[in-house]
Amino acid sequence: MNVLIVYAHPEPRSLNGSLKDFSVRHLEDAGHHVQVSDLYAMKWKASLDAQDSTAWPADARFDASLASKEAYETSTQRHDIALEQEKLRWADAVILQFPLWWFSMPAILKGWVERVYAYGFAYGVGEHSDNHWGDRYGEGAMAGKRAMLLVTTGGWESHYGPRGINGPIEDILFPIQHGILYYPGFDVVPPFVIYRTGRTDEERYGHIRDALGQRLDTLWTAAPIPFRPQNTGAYDIPALTLRPDLAPGEEGLRVHIAKE
Amino acid sequence: MNVLIVYAHPEPRSLNGSLKDFSVRHLEDAGHHVQVSDLYAMKWKASLDAQDSTAWPADARFDASLASKEAYETSTQRHDIALEQEKLRWADAVILQFPLWWFSMPAILKGWVERVYAYGFAYGVGEHSDNHWGDRYGEGAMAGKRAMLLVTTGGWESHYGPRGINGPIEDILFPIQHGILYYPGFDVVPPFVIYRTGRTDEERYGHIRDALGQRLDTLWTAAPIPFRPQNTGAYDIPALTLRPDLAPGEEGLRVHIAKE
Repeated sequence: MNVLIVYAHPEPRSLNGSLKDFSVRHLEDAGHHVQVSDLYAMKWKASLDAQDSTAWPADARFDASLASKEAYETSTQRHDIALEQEKLRWADAVILQFPLWWFSMPAILKGWVERVYAYGFAYGVGEHSDNHWGDRYGEGAMAGKRAMLLVTTGGWESHYGPRGINGPIEDILFPIQHGILYYPGFDVVPPFVIYRTGRTDEERYGHIRDALGQRLDTLWTAAPIPFRPQNTGAYDIPALTLRPDLAPGEEGLRVHIAKE
Repeated sequence: MNVLIVYAHPEPRSLNGSLKDFSVRHLEDAGHHVQVSDLYAMKWKASLDAQDSTAWPADARFDASLASKEAYETSTQRHDIALEQEKLRWADAVILQFPLWWFSMPAILKGWVERVYAYGFAYGVGEHSDNHWGDRYGEGAMAGKRAMLLVTTGGWESHYGPRGINGPIEDILFPIQHGILYYPGFDVVPPFVIYRTGRTDEERYGHIRDALGQRLDTLWTAAPIPFRPQNTGAYDIPALTLRPDLAPGEEGLRVHIAKE
């Protein structure tokens, strides 16, 4: 299998750097092919702007979606964007690895999403009709591929628990797991989260590494988070609200996850 | 009053650009002082890295928190960071204005948060003891100031409703409103969200502008979102889980908002 690791940490000699190297070795030892997009090492351009569409007229009003659409269709995207899209097409699984900064991904990785997820590639695809609102949320270019988050945080696990002050980790990560990964079609397996990274001695590092190895071994077989697909009847179209008989009376992020 | 607008849109001739200009005029006409950090126009450096700490040794292992702490304490931060911190000190209210891209703020604004929110300024402040876990979530450098999000999105309001497929807008914005604004002490008033921006004609623009004007007029008097403060008894320390008798039996993001 082909695995793309999109990695966003500024220091190779960090816990994140060590775990990234470990993942590459572990996956390759199991016979997989691995590519790493090391965003800091690549000096990835974080901010989406008119320069991303090389044929966009210099004096034209910049419309981010329209410019992305035209550049994608006419192969006039900046080369760095096209290269990342090619890696996504090649991959059977994608791992986004990052430290949780201010309860989300680092800016450099957010900018990877914004620039690589072109109109016509990751959104704005498929028919729009009375029973189909574009190929998204369970359909799309990434359908059939798997994705997993590998996240480190200095906070304690209890701070991200069901009643923890930061919010439950699965809710904090919902905009990423549902909105960035499930949206273009990925099957998202549960995240691998490392808490309280400031307290990582050799012994604990060994445990973390072993646990990560097991998660990498089951990347292809683990049950994905059962997000509800958009176009198979669970949602009323075009309001895109969950049908009243599903999770009746409930609201919030979790109604979009089917109960087993 | 002093208002800082941190604005993240690449095109001045956009709905966002027009509304930003309107907000400046409207606030100034009411006698307030306004500064705008127009991140795209400033070519804001989005990615946090070792160059943000000008005294950090070139060959030293980069620790983002430690480097931020030292640079803040010794006034060796990059100048662009110190300037934004000065604007935050000056401000009585802060408006973060941005288009919702992939269910969060644009990378350039996320990078503003990461770089400007230094250790010792926006986090890592206050005593850590058995009944106080740092000055955060209701305390901190921004205590007494107000903040509001001004967000545009192409999606429909129902898609962001209580059972909408994207998740309720207040839950999607929780990592920003609670994790980025309430964390260092801001009182956060409800967001001003504009949906379905692709359908904005002159008439609708007039309505939006009027509604925004009213929100700006009540920026100082509107009731903030009643997030629960960390250090006044609602949370067990150090687990930082909500006390069992508050929102008993419930879990998720919304337990952190006190019911009226």
